[in-house]
Amino acid sequence: MRDILPVTDQPILALADLADPVGTWGRLCRWLTAGATTPTHPFRWPVLSTVADDGGPDARTVVLRRFDHAARQLVFHTDVRSAKVTDLRRDARCTFLFYDADDRLQMRVRAVAAIHHADDFARAEFAALPPHNRATYASVVVPGEVESTDAPFVYPPKPPVDEAVSFGHFAAVACVIERIDALELHPSGHRRAVLEWNGAEVRIKRVGP
Amino acid sequence: MRDILPVTDQPILALADLADPVGTWGRLCRWLTAGATTPTHPFRWPVLSTVADDGGPDARTVVLRRFDHAARQLVFHTDVRSAKVTDLRRDARCTFLFYDADDRLQMRVRAVAAIHHADDFARAEFAALPPHNRATYASVVVPGEVESTDAPFVYPPKPPVDEAVSFGHFAAVACVIERIDALELHPSGHRRAVLEWNGAEVRIKRVGP
Repeated sequence: MRDILPVTDQPILALADLADPVGTWGRLCRWLTAGATTPTHPFRWPVLSTVADDGGPDARTVVLRRFDHAARQLVFHTDVRSAKVTDLRRDARCTFLFYDADDRLQMRVRAVAAIHHADDFARAEFAALPPHNRATYASVVVPGEVESTDAPFVYPPKPPVDEAVSFGHFAAVACVIERIDALELHPSGHRRAVLEWNGAEVRIKRVGP
Repeated sequence: MRDILPVTDQPILALADLADPVGTWGRLCRWLTAGATTPTHPFRWPVLSTVADDGGPDARTVVLRRFDHAARQLVFHTDVRSAKVTDLRRDARCTFLFYDADDRLQMRVRAVAAIHHADDFARAEFAALPPHNRATYASVVVPGEVESTDAPFVYPPKPPVDEAVSFGHFAAVACVIERIDALELHPSGHRRAVLEWNGAEVRIKRVGP
């Protein structure tokens, strides 16, 4: 992350006082909460990394739908037929990479994912979505499934609105945070800290940026 | 990647003609070249995912420094003491996640990394950097090494300019592309294709978005 962006003199915001682990966690939560609640916030679109079926890394952008401070839980939605669900059922460990270019804050968040499909948690998440958003899950097209390449591309017809079909394809993935590696860039010297949880207790280590 | 951005009517740019694998690869190269040569292009800052020492995924932002179309090679720079070098020496597989929000194009690029340290390749990359950029590698601070958390944070003094020390810490990582999963978002229907190489030959599969 050397010289990624032009140097500015904005103050260190999140990692100002590492002697206070709970306070530092509280400050980092501001960005996670903003990402989960503000569609235009840069923390809205983290990159989710998983381990693929060959043991190598895979990654894709997801939308942060919810953040629960007390439960240390990040929630995103996906099609239950997608490869990332298969990946996470095989190995639940995942890493969210968040970056806010204005505040020059990067967070690498290691978490453990639980797939919710056709259960009460999924139902509550599904119900909270606007109808046009729920409807996108009705598609008969399976994400990642090979289609004919030779035939000319045809825009798929809009699927009929069938909430039962949509809900059948819908998964809510709830990820509990285990570790955060936070990096705050500053022209006079970057700061970096690792927060780790042991049960409810958070510990903090300052590390070289 | 459902409804990440407001709907617009921009045309499909990269995946317009999947019956032509070489042409499709040529079109995708435009974004990789732009990222490597234009500091403000969104492909400048991909997220690099690797497999960490516990077998789980790790990720961080890197700067795309060079792209070689013929060699299918992506190059970034790092401190040879950083964890991603250790990760890539253990398992050379990595995934770059690129996203251009204006063109609504996501590329997931699986590659195999080679670490260049204190060799001719590294020397050429190092020599091409501006002096202030080379100087950042002189730092005695080891990335990721634990520092005292209790002592007040002190901005580290600027290291003296010692090009030999800097070059000793400098690594250029050259990654050869093996597969690209490209997704182009469009209000009338997204397109997604997977390009895979067998030697110099590229094959293409259209897959469900």
